[in-house]
Amino acid sequence: LGKMRTKVTEFPGKIKKLGQDDPRRIVHSLKVGLAITLVSLFYYFDPLYVGFGSSAMWAVLTVVVVFEFSVGATLGKGLNRGLATFLAGSLGFGAHHLATLPGEKFQPILLGFFVFLLATTVSFIRFFPRMKARYDYGLVIFILTFCLISVSGYRDEEVLELAHKRVSTILIGGFTALFVCIFICPVWAGDDLHNLAANNIEKLANFLEEFGDEYFKESKDRESNKASLQGYKSVLNSKQNEESLVNFARWEPRHGRFRFRHPWKQYQKIGSLTRHCAYRVEALNGYLNSDVKASLETRGKIKEACMKLSCESGKALKELASALRTMTQPPSQCPHIAKSKNAANSLKSLLKTGLCKDIDLQEIVAVATVASLLLDVLSCTERIS
Amino acid sequence: LGKMRTKVTEFPGKIKKLGQDDPRRIVHSLKVGLAITLVSLFYYFDPLYVGFGSSAMWAVLTVVVVFEFSVGATLGKGLNRGLATFLAGSLGFGAHHLATLPGEKFQPILLGFFVFLLATTVSFIRFFPRMKARYDYGLVIFILTFCLISVSGYRDEEVLELAHKRVSTILIGGFTALFVCIFICPVWAGDDLHNLAANNIEKLANFLEEFGDEYFKESKDRESNKASLQGYKSVLNSKQNEESLVNFARWEPRHGRFRFRHPWKQYQKIGSLTRHCAYRVEALNGYLNSDVKASLETRGKIKEACMKLSCESGKALKELASALRTMTQPPSQCPHIAKSKNAANSLKSLLKTGLCKDIDLQEIVAVATVASLLLDVLSCTERIS
Repeated sequence: LGKMRTKVTEFPGKIKKLGQDDPRRIVHSLKVGLAITLVSLFYYFDPLYVGFGSSAMWAVLTVVVVFEFSVGATLGKGLNRGLATFLAGSLGFGAHHLATLPGEKFQPILLGFFVFLLATTVSFIRFFPRMKARYDYGLVIFILTFCLISVSGYRDEEVLELAHKRVSTILIGGFTALFVCIFICPVWAGDDLHNLAANNIEKLANFLEEFGDEYFKESKDRESNKASLQGYKSVLNSKQNEESLVNFARWEPRHGRFRFRHPWKQYQKIGSLTRHCAYRVEALNGYLNSDVKASLETRGKIKEACMKLSCESGKALKELASALRTMTQPPSQCPHIAKSKNAANSLKSLLKTGLCKDIDLQEIVAVATVASLLLDVLSCTERIS
Repeated sequence: LGKMRTKVTEFPGKIKKLGQDDPRRIVHSLKVGLAITLVSLFYYFDPLYVGFGSSAMWAVLTVVVVFEFSVGATLGKGLNRGLATFLAGSLGFGAHHLATLPGEKFQPILLGFFVFLLATTVSFIRFFPRMKARYDYGLVIFILTFCLISVSGYRDEEVLELAHKRVSTILIGGFTALFVCIFICPVWAGDDLHNLAANNIEKLANFLEEFGDEYFKESKDRESNKASLQGYKSVLNSKQNEESLVNFARWEPRHGRFRFRHPWKQYQKIGSLTRHCAYRVEALNGYLNSDVKASLETRGKIKEACMKLSCESGKALKELASALRTMTQPPSQCPHIAKSKNAANSLKSLLKTGLCKDIDLQEIVAVATVASLLLDVLSCTERIS
């Protein structure tokens, strides 16, 4: 019971935090409310209701189901739903018509067979990874509409009129959702994706900039600064989020700084390079916390070169991130990358002369890897914007 | 055009592969077809149809929307849908009743206000990560049903009867879906999760067992064996998949070897440790492909200890994986772990005596890290089963 009470008292704080983290969430909630209220007007005004009757229900249903956070997701769902309804509707009529041909008795058997065949096939198609990513919702609606139309047709003689009403209300619902979603404080998945890519690179940069200080700190109280070093952790598992954003972004029309056929796939490449880099950073982070530490003197010997290397890499990454953010071509000869390459070379020669001891090598080599990865990232970024 | 032709000719092969990869997919498709055909019987038989009329549509709709690949997902969606429909339905009646009190004129305004308020609130609640994970679908259905009931009530005087029919058809649809899903070749998310955890550990083990051979290979033709070393890559991004499986598994009743309240959360812990380990392995893998390689002599010096370490770590992981698979307590003093600890110690002392050169250290230290992580994984696994 005490546990429950603390939960209840914490609740308002959580709500506030959720809203503050991303104020667009509040706006989104209000938008959903608005869109639903708009379509429910169909019920309140006689002249509107007369035309559609109880089919007006489908408009409400469509808005609730289709309305998503970002424009891309809403457009994707809306188009999926619209297209699938239309195609499956036509196919359903066809099946209904075919089933009436051999006579009353066989109709249920034929209808059942068609429904079974289509549901089985489409369910299987849903397993194709590509279909799953972009058209999953459309396929569900396809099965749904086909079954409703072809099976209802068995009872209802006015299927055509019913279907017509249903399609028009679904269209109205879909357009209302899209209208509210696009024209009132739109949330573009493309923007989110763009920011995600830049933020992730920046997080790595932050880690690298602070890594040198942290690792070569003389004192033992290294707990202080750690929180700021953990920012990169979220990069490790960013893949799924990125993928869904790319899928949404591909549905979006031209907006803001993004052309119609913006190379969204490039973001996946950048993302995978960034994660590649993050895995290295994760390994570095392991050495921050490891019990086995080289002595201060040994560390002192390579301190300068290491700090320079990690700091310059971080700066180079920051520059890349800001270039990505503003969508400008990053300078082909970034001074920070040149500097960090220098530092890496001097570090390597230091090691060759036999100054090396124990653990530090690990981190040097890893930092060198990071530096070389940087070059990859750079060359990749160049291909964009 | 040529591209399209190759795509078409490749298509049958793709279908075959999809089915062979997981034959349960074909069974699932057939199950969906069966369930839909079952509920559409409502339309074909007069005695069944008379009771429900066109509400029979909701049974079809429920089956199509609720039927998912695993039992857990279907149960989760079904319960979400059932509960949300019931709660929102009651609340919708309340709202409808309240709105009729002040008189005809205010009814639409009040109804609109209620709908707006509820839709906004519930949309916001959907952003809570916990709600999103388990009850997202239920919340959508909650908005949907509330709007339909309260708004339809404005036009339809027999809301109560309509709602009653709708709830019973939804229940029938839900139960049909559940019945087919559970009693015909069920797919348990819990089993999948269990196998995923064991497979992931095994993939890492495979890498470690082969890593030694690969790294210390004398010849230059190291392309041959590489494919088998890349298996671990899928572990890196397994988080999302794991999380959704845990969510599904938590809906599942007792089955097979799993008790009712099986500690599903533990799988997430094992999973995160496995990924932690996989990041280290990824760093090791970088050294397999790196251009900078220590000379054969330097590598030769540490060869024995390194190979033993990585091989024994791999064996220990394999043992853990099989213990997890059979759900037996892993032996608290695993001989392989003891051996790999020994190897790590001898390696460390080798390095202290100054045999070290350049790059090899990196990998040694990383392997040592892996070994220590192994212990973590072990202690964690002990807490389960």
